[in-house]
Amino acid sequence: MNDDRVHMTLDAVRAYARATLARVGLAPAHVAAVAETIVAGERDGCGAHGLYRLLVAAHSVACGVVVPDAVPVLLEPRAGGVVRVDGRGGFAQLAFDTGRDALVDAARANGIAALAITNVVHFAALWPEVEALVDRGLVALAVTANHAWVAPAGGTRPVFGTNPIAFGWPRAGGVPFVFDFATSAVARGEIELHRRAGTPVPADWGHAPDGGDTTDPAEVLAGAMRTFGGHKGSALALMVELLAGPLLGDLTSAESIAWDAGRKGSPLGGELIVALDPAGFLGAGAAEQMARAESVFAAIEGQGARVPGARRHALRPVSESDGVWVSRALLDDIDRTTGGTA
Amino acid sequence: MNDDRVHMTLDAVRAYARATLARVGLAPAHVAAVAETIVAGERDGCGAHGLYRLLVAAHSVACGVVVPDAVPVLLEPRAGGVVRVDGRGGFAQLAFDTGRDALVDAARANGIAALAITNVVHFAALWPEVEALVDRGLVALAVTANHAWVAPAGGTRPVFGTNPIAFGWPRAGGVPFVFDFATSAVARGEIELHRRAGTPVPADWGHAPDGGDTTDPAEVLAGAMRTFGGHKGSALALMVELLAGPLLGDLTSAESIAWDAGRKGSPLGGELIVALDPAGFLGAGAAEQMARAESVFAAIEGQGARVPGARRHALRPVSESDGVWVSRALLDDIDRTTGGTA
Repeated sequence: MNDDRVHMTLDAVRAYARATLARVGLAPAHVAAVAETIVAGERDGCGAHGLYRLLVAAHSVACGVVVPDAVPVLLEPRAGGVVRVDGRGGFAQLAFDTGRDALVDAARANGIAALAITNVVHFAALWPEVEALVDRGLVALAVTANHAWVAPAGGTRPVFGTNPIAFGWPRAGGVPFVFDFATSAVARGEIELHRRAGTPVPADWGHAPDGGDTTDPAEVLAGAMRTFGGHKGSALALMVELLAGPLLGDLTSAESIAWDAGRKGSPLGGELIVALDPAGFLGAGAAEQMARAESVFAAIEGQGARVPGARRHALRPVSESDGVWVSRALLDDIDRTTGGTA
Repeated sequence: MNDDRVHMTLDAVRAYARATLARVGLAPAHVAAVAETIVAGERDGCGAHGLYRLLVAAHSVACGVVVPDAVPVLLEPRAGGVVRVDGRGGFAQLAFDTGRDALVDAARANGIAALAITNVVHFAALWPEVEALVDRGLVALAVTANHAWVAPAGGTRPVFGTNPIAFGWPRAGGVPFVFDFATSAVARGEIELHRRAGTPVPADWGHAPDGGDTTDPAEVLAGAMRTFGGHKGSALALMVELLAGPLLGDLTSAESIAWDAGRKGSPLGGELIVALDPAGFLGAGAAEQMARAESVFAAIEGQGARVPGARRHALRPVSESDGVWVSRALLDDIDRTTGGTA
């Protein structure tokens, strides 16, 4: 028995997340949608996207960056392959749920379709959304911009958000291949952890506010993060910025952080999700052709390398049967911040 | 006057490329299509994708990996948003030209569409194809697999091709934003140059055949290249592998190099191009919204950083008015190899 940690079933995680989100003033439909992403984070061993996010969500409600009772609207299509949802300033999850079935239908009808979500607040990973499409047999790609924190390669001042890319592929065996990563060198939370711990960060994580090199996490947070992978990662960050911003008629990362005006809330903006239906490409032979991908996965795993996302999926059944362990200090912090009692 | 270099107008480059390609036995429609990508390479200062590629094309014809008179076929669509072209074993350029207008039409009708090109031999960059779509006002993304030369992160044996990603965005000022890069740490040709020069390569470019670290370019060529950007680049290489292989019902990179059977020809496989029509997302306000991207480009260039692809586009008008300088040794090599006279 470890007093620092509390054992919770996933149902208990769900109930706790729902109670907390309701208490901070989120409308019931948002409570349900956001709670599911928090359960998914704890279930898959992604603590940074689990119950911890209740603190982030609560702050965004308290500081007014999110509309807690926004009702997302499925907009009139401008083209048969583009489903558009206006999130009306609420959290992204409910907006995605609002457009999901229409996206699935459009992808099955056209072979490829896009879901353009605008005017939503982002504070969670993209992989739950990608996985919801993969579960329906689709290949999916999702991108979103956020707050301008990341400098382009060759520069030192922020232009991009951490601009994640998520991708999902339905695998023959049932467990999908899903990745989701920031195009920044590391997640912003990693730098924050170093700042709290008083430890230096590697020199290739960011720039000081004056543009100089630094290993001081506080300087990187005040200055700029770097992209992963040099100029190639920077090119991808720019691609994401354009696809999730101007192409959707929504905010760039610079505009999002300007709109935040120092409130330190979660970013406001758009999200682009592209879904591809294997049947539209492969017809009746789709399942057989898609299963040929297994030789690629086998070649990776056969040499002891890891298929991205595999750890999350391996943990999942364990969490479902055995529950998860959660930091007591975190729960205390959430309760203190949101006025609850654990 | 430098005797090592020959001055050529772009028309002269085109005529030389066409004559060479015809001489090695390529059918007229392929001659015209392939020559244009070679002109584009010289014009944009990408020597590796210019006249040098005539040697590569000639070898692929000579060793029998490409069908020199293949007639690509526009296949019956399985879905309104997916245009399918069977390249019948010929070079990719003519297959792309065969599907291009149908892709543009499908993207304008649906807002988003895909071109699935299968059964083609690749030996050139993807950016000319992306740019052809951007010139028609579309946003475009293209991927292709090739020969298994690249190890996954955490492994040391080849699974992926150099699996490039190309992206294009139409800019308000007329000069588009287009990038095109391999998901390998470097282009394979870079390693080949080091081998010829007898110079070591950085330790993070590849692995020796026994899986060990190496700075010997010959060992990397015989062993495996690495992806760019660690596990994130590796995840992207895998995404490309799946999208351009099994999703199209075409070869994986491992299957392509097995099919090559030591002939050292260009890779055979598929290519996926996704085109997005801004009007399908933004309606009547598309031009105004797309122009908002200019603030992102300005934020990059305003701090002295480079927008990817900008160098190519800056060189272009210079090459068009002044012509280009080409290595005399290269032309001699091409003539010697293909039986021509400079």
